[in-house]
Amino acid sequence: MQTFEQYFLMNSDDVIYYVKAKIDSYKEAQHITCTEIGDGNLNYVYRVANTESNESIIVKQAGTTARISDEFVLSTSRNKIETEALKLQHKLAPGLVPEIYLLDEIMSCCIMEDLSKLTIMRTALINFETFPRFAEHITDFLVNTLLCTSDVVLNHKEKKELVRTFINPELCEISENLVFTEPFHNNFNRNEVTPGNEQFVQTLLYSNEELHLEVAKLKFHFMNNTQSLVHGDLHTGSIFIDQNDTKVIDPEFAFFGPMGYDIGNIMANLIFAWARGRAFQQKEFTEWVENTLFDIMDLFEKKFSTAWEEHTTEVVAKNADFQKHYIQNIFKDTAGMAGLELARRIVGLAKVKDITSIEPIENRLKAERLCLRVAVQLILNPSEFQTGGQYIAALQNAQQEENQ
Amino acid sequence: MQTFEQYFLMNSDDVIYYVKAKIDSYKEAQHITCTEIGDGNLNYVYRVANTESNESIIVKQAGTTARISDEFVLSTSRNKIETEALKLQHKLAPGLVPEIYLLDEIMSCCIMEDLSKLTIMRTALINFETFPRFAEHITDFLVNTLLCTSDVVLNHKEKKELVRTFINPELCEISENLVFTEPFHNNFNRNEVTPGNEQFVQTLLYSNEELHLEVAKLKFHFMNNTQSLVHGDLHTGSIFIDQNDTKVIDPEFAFFGPMGYDIGNIMANLIFAWARGRAFQQKEFTEWVENTLFDIMDLFEKKFSTAWEEHTTEVVAKNADFQKHYIQNIFKDTAGMAGLELARRIVGLAKVKDITSIEPIENRLKAERLCLRVAVQLILNPSEFQTGGQYIAALQNAQQEENQ
Repeated sequence: MQTFEQYFLMNSDDVIYYVKAKIDSYKEAQHITCTEIGDGNLNYVYRVANTESNESIIVKQAGTTARISDEFVLSTSRNKIETEALKLQHKLAPGLVPEIYLLDEIMSCCIMEDLSKLTIMRTALINFETFPRFAEHITDFLVNTLLCTSDVVLNHKEKKELVRTFINPELCEISENLVFTEPFHNNFNRNEVTPGNEQFVQTLLYSNEELHLEVAKLKFHFMNNTQSLVHGDLHTGSIFIDQNDTKVIDPEFAFFGPMGYDIGNIMANLIFAWARGRAFQQKEFTEWVENTLFDIMDLFEKKFSTAWEEHTTEVVAKNADFQKHYIQNIFKDTAGMAGLELARRIVGLAKVKDITSIEPIENRLKAERLCLRVAVQLILNPSEFQTGGQYIAALQNAQQEENQ
Repeated sequence: MQTFEQYFLMNSDDVIYYVKAKIDSYKEAQHITCTEIGDGNLNYVYRVANTESNESIIVKQAGTTARISDEFVLSTSRNKIETEALKLQHKLAPGLVPEIYLLDEIMSCCIMEDLSKLTIMRTALINFETFPRFAEHITDFLVNTLLCTSDVVLNHKEKKELVRTFINPELCEISENLVFTEPFHNNFNRNEVTPGNEQFVQTLLYSNEELHLEVAKLKFHFMNNTQSLVHGDLHTGSIFIDQNDTKVIDPEFAFFGPMGYDIGNIMANLIFAWARGRAFQQKEFTEWVENTLFDIMDLFEKKFSTAWEEHTTEVVAKNADFQKHYIQNIFKDTAGMAGLELARRIVGLAKVKDITSIEPIENRLKAERLCLRVAVQLILNPSEFQTGGQYIAALQNAQQEENQ
């Protein structure tokens, strides 16, 4: 029998032995099933169930190359970052992330709460499901994880040790390339532009020098601003949801970066859902998305301000003008980062099903152009997006441009 | 005989044994002298000479508390950061930092080139000596150490590993308190305002809310912007100089922070020399200082731009508009940081002899007010200091305000 004292990539049978070896309540179990359920790009994910007791858990192991392409060779230590991030997020935002039962650095593996009674949010949004409590939950998650890992609240020496722990060169490099460079320069020739939109992309992204300047600013901001522990990949595929619960998963891209990166990713991925809703004329759904965009900005600002006043320990931050300036900058970053996510998911390597599954193709092309028009507005004028209402106006502008 | 296998704080005799044990050319030497020459705040520095061969070296050991006050308890690991910084600076700016012969992590000690044929720059400036090659040398040091450790030039993964190596919580905390907080809030009640200027300091610094907002922005920028490996304490007491050579020493405060912090410290400390020159009506000297302020800004911009075009490896940075934006921001940071250094050395715990040795007291008070007036201009309008000429105009404005 395996002792799991040296790393190897497990198959389903190995995972059953692994769970029996590591988790007490599975040790004597006779009826264990194991199913690979991973659909992400970087990890192998198994659901292990004790069919007698009806318990189940998730085993997640890091492989040595990304599943999307062998071009991305990765160290398995990212599993440690993911688990450390989950633990910290669990402390700061309990109930909004899965529980961790075991972190195994040797096997680059962790065992965690099974959330499979919930649905991946992107899948639900593709079916036009709405989640009235999402804005409330996600702003709790954002405010608690972001503000409480910033120098506004944390002891500065403690924070610097956390910055050290979460330095994440390999996964940051993936974002630096796929989010901040290739969508605008196609420098590795890996972009995939849907046939029919080539000229539009050429003009709006590849030849747009004003845009390239703003993208360069955002890339350096992403690489150099250790504001908070960000999730780093907070799209709707990283969220499990139902009508009662919201659980954020997969923080393997976590590092200390700008808060706006997480908030912007949420906003952008809701905009994909909105564009899909428009394509299928799902009025009730798009109205819910608009309300959610509005509420996220509104609730974030309110909760963030309240928490700031309650928790700040920093002398110079006990200053209303500075607090206002700080929040304005978060929202400026949010807009820029949302614009980048919108652009890279349309023209880059890693697409979103909300858009790719739109048919007929004319409607997909139209939805893609809509998203890119919004992207450019956000990237070029990020300071002008301080409220959800301004996002909704940008969506309407883009719609009008598209209809002209 | 000591084996130096466990840390202890050495005295002069220990240091002689230490050098004989560690450096081959001293092993058999019969006539070795050892003198403590430290005048800094944090370390013990010995000059060890072989009086027969006329060779000499410097031994620098980190103590467990700062020499300025036992309130600052420090880990001795800062010696490692200092030596790693010196090594990297030596690679990037050869001839502008001392050579390192030995790094001993156990003893928190390093052995390096003896520069005592040179003079500490602050001492020379106090005697109104001028150094026509200083602007040329210091801009070489700044451009080579700052640009080449930034994401403009460095591979981003390699840079993140360096950021990790140079996380420096304890010494950054000293700066965060002494530079970015106490001069404006006197929150630890440790400021020392020269009697006669209390009301002036109250109005200009302690009650100035507009200033407090800008100081808060600068503090968060210092804590969160991992732009480059900065020296972190680049005042004229950290520079050995003569008519031919300039050597930057003591980078124990090194960490990844804003480039403008180093440049601003240089500018501010030259302004102290200028204020002293004015107090003693040393026209030739103050003119040299003004020319040097001008040349530093001018040469930095030229050399930085040339080096950028030559060395950048980053796709999005191959963009003239971004390069211009980047340099403008460096100079904006430079102005703010220079203003902070000017303020903290006048009202804070750690003063500069250029100013404290001005007599009679009326002239010292006047020089202090002059420096604080310049400080406030720099902190409130940092974007307006893009050239050396704008610094000189600010000095003249302050002089006029003082004379009214």
